[in-house]
Amino acid sequence: MIPFNKPYLTGKELVYIENAVKKGKISGNGYYTKLCQDFFEKKYGFFKCLLTTSCTDALEMAAILINIQEGDEVIMPSYTFVSTANAFVLRGAKIVFADSRKDHPSIDEDAIEALITPKTKAIVPVHYAGVASDMDKIMDLALKYNLFVVEDAAQAIDSFYTGKDGVQRPLGSIGHLAAFSFHETKNIISGEGGMLVINDAQFAERAEIIWEKGTNRSAFFRGEVDKYGWVDVGSSFLPSDIIAAFLWAQLENIDDIQRVRKSHWEHYNTKLQTWAVENEIQLPVIPSYSTNNGHMFYLVCKNLEQRTTIIEKLKSKNILSVFHYISLHSSPFYNQIHNEKPLPQSDRYSDCLLRLPMYYELDVMNVINNLRNED
Amino acid sequence: MIPFNKPYLTGKELVYIENAVKKGKISGNGYYTKLCQDFFEKKYGFFKCLLTTSCTDALEMAAILINIQEGDEVIMPSYTFVSTANAFVLRGAKIVFADSRKDHPSIDEDAIEALITPKTKAIVPVHYAGVASDMDKIMDLALKYNLFVVEDAAQAIDSFYTGKDGVQRPLGSIGHLAAFSFHETKNIISGEGGMLVINDAQFAERAEIIWEKGTNRSAFFRGEVDKYGWVDVGSSFLPSDIIAAFLWAQLENIDDIQRVRKSHWEHYNTKLQTWAVENEIQLPVIPSYSTNNGHMFYLVCKNLEQRTTIIEKLKSKNILSVFHYISLHSSPFYNQIHNEKPLPQSDRYSDCLLRLPMYYELDVMNVINNLRNED
Repeated sequence: MIPFNKPYLTGKELVYIENAVKKGKISGNGYYTKLCQDFFEKKYGFFKCLLTTSCTDALEMAAILINIQEGDEVIMPSYTFVSTANAFVLRGAKIVFADSRKDHPSIDEDAIEALITPKTKAIVPVHYAGVASDMDKIMDLALKYNLFVVEDAAQAIDSFYTGKDGVQRPLGSIGHLAAFSFHETKNIISGEGGMLVINDAQFAERAEIIWEKGTNRSAFFRGEVDKYGWVDVGSSFLPSDIIAAFLWAQLENIDDIQRVRKSHWEHYNTKLQTWAVENEIQLPVIPSYSTNNGHMFYLVCKNLEQRTTIIEKLKSKNILSVFHYISLHSSPFYNQIHNEKPLPQSDRYSDCLLRLPMYYELDVMNVINNLRNED
Repeated sequence: MIPFNKPYLTGKELVYIENAVKKGKISGNGYYTKLCQDFFEKKYGFFKCLLTTSCTDALEMAAILINIQEGDEVIMPSYTFVSTANAFVLRGAKIVFADSRKDHPSIDEDAIEALITPKTKAIVPVHYAGVASDMDKIMDLALKYNLFVVEDAAQAIDSFYTGKDGVQRPLGSIGHLAAFSFHETKNIISGEGGMLVINDAQFAERAEIIWEKGTNRSAFFRGEVDKYGWVDVGSSFLPSDIIAAFLWAQLENIDDIQRVRKSHWEHYNTKLQTWAVENEIQLPVIPSYSTNNGHMFYLVCKNLEQRTTIIEKLKSKNILSVFHYISLHSSPFYNQIHNEKPLPQSDRYSDCLLRLPMYYELDVMNVINNLRNED
């Protein structure tokens, strides 16, 4: 059986969890939480990092930080996970969905400007499959219309964007805020887990307060105030240090994990070229300004029928491949409140995109051979 | 050194975490999550249980479920944790704070009715120290004024209330909804963690949807719908199965943990009686309708000076004792929006309540002897 995903243990996860317990602190903001946050700040130059219980929660923190109010509009792709939208809906936002690019499931950067109104407050690009949106275009729009940019970098760890200035920057370091996921299906995992990245320093102090349930507890422990109390809204966004201990074992091995995943990805990409052309299947496109982080290898089939056939064929060989999002603009929830506008590319990826198995211990040639022999 | 709290490992936590990883599913709603939820439903007769990343998150789910809207009023004690309030503030509620009882830090049940207005939507009693609020009084008010009751049972695991009908019911099973905490300072822990209890069946289906990020994924996996999608607001309220695996090891030992904690509590209560009278210190009062769950042993000092003196004396013996909440109605955040009304009992507990060390491996006689010898 080849599953679609298999969580990978690097070997030290349980040791570090045991250490965390022995330190007597397994609630949030403990020893391993700080190690992980420091790691990200140093390795990727993020201004400030806060671990969260999920990427969803990091997006919710972002929505609170940019002060989303009833009726504010937020532009994002329709082809994304529900949390990208719900995080802002929970604060009263109206979601304005943009179509995907023809060559890639991420937001069509050239479709954004027409959607901007005086009520628009933020743009939320989603770096699908860890491939960068064209951030120069998006940041230019943000500057022109005074908008915030929240990068949904759920899948985008250790991936990079090279802007027109020629500088290569990590995804998650470009928008005012960014959200990462460590869900078990991601490259680096902690079961459930996420992280908010604060790149705009104006948000740093308040982010810490919102993270700590709306209290100035962090400032108190730094000795900046003599008692702490309720100073803002907030929630319990901190993961247990058990989760951070698990994550730390992963981060220590991030280079190895990335090397192996990218190798799988390259195998898929190289060995499936001919087969893909023969079957009118589109393989992933990596724009020249983006790196590939080996998060996901997907096929864009020519139609729904072809996708169903491939899923069934692989299933008969005990290989699990899965489709992904259903366009959010066509969901029951969104249709209750808004008129559906056609977003043909988003719908095409909903119908035709198929994700092949991808995990550290994957026997990638097995999947490739089964795909090629069968078609 | 005797800390205030020390997380207790029952012995199987790491084994079960390893099992969870080997099962290939460490995201939410996995094997151990189901075990824990079933355990609570069976042991305490809760209608439906959903593990959450924190008690805060369980309260936020409750606020969404009872459909809190801008301007709705929610009555709760001022002497409570910020999350009791923030969970409802995040949905737009106005918090109306009630005073504490003279004999106990929990809400003064007889002060509630005067606070009810046509805008009141819910009452949130907090079972402080695991000691029951008088739920008959509260449920009668809810019935009379058509209000929801959300029990903040953060500290109240394995504690019981005997109503005027003579039936003993578990705390958390009486209100329409209830929230528990498994934070490392609680009797049963998972570092960070919580649980929503749904007692009113009308909320069961929607709770599952909100829990699963606003999707009908749970119904999909039960075969009730043929695809799942975005149907409601929601968040990622599910903890990793790593957290649930840890929790399961604790639950298997709940009876032992409770026995030991209650024994510590009884030692404190018995051996400090004379000392307390001599020093005009009030020991915890357990009303006849409530059990004690050994969550917390606290002193109510005669004034702030006495409390400070005791804290310092214990500290000089390397024993850590800690005060608790600062009245929320007097917080900087609440004062920005509302006028402060005097709540003298709440302020008295803010100034005078002192929590003594309480954990499984505690040398309770050491603390008692140091308290008695020094005063």
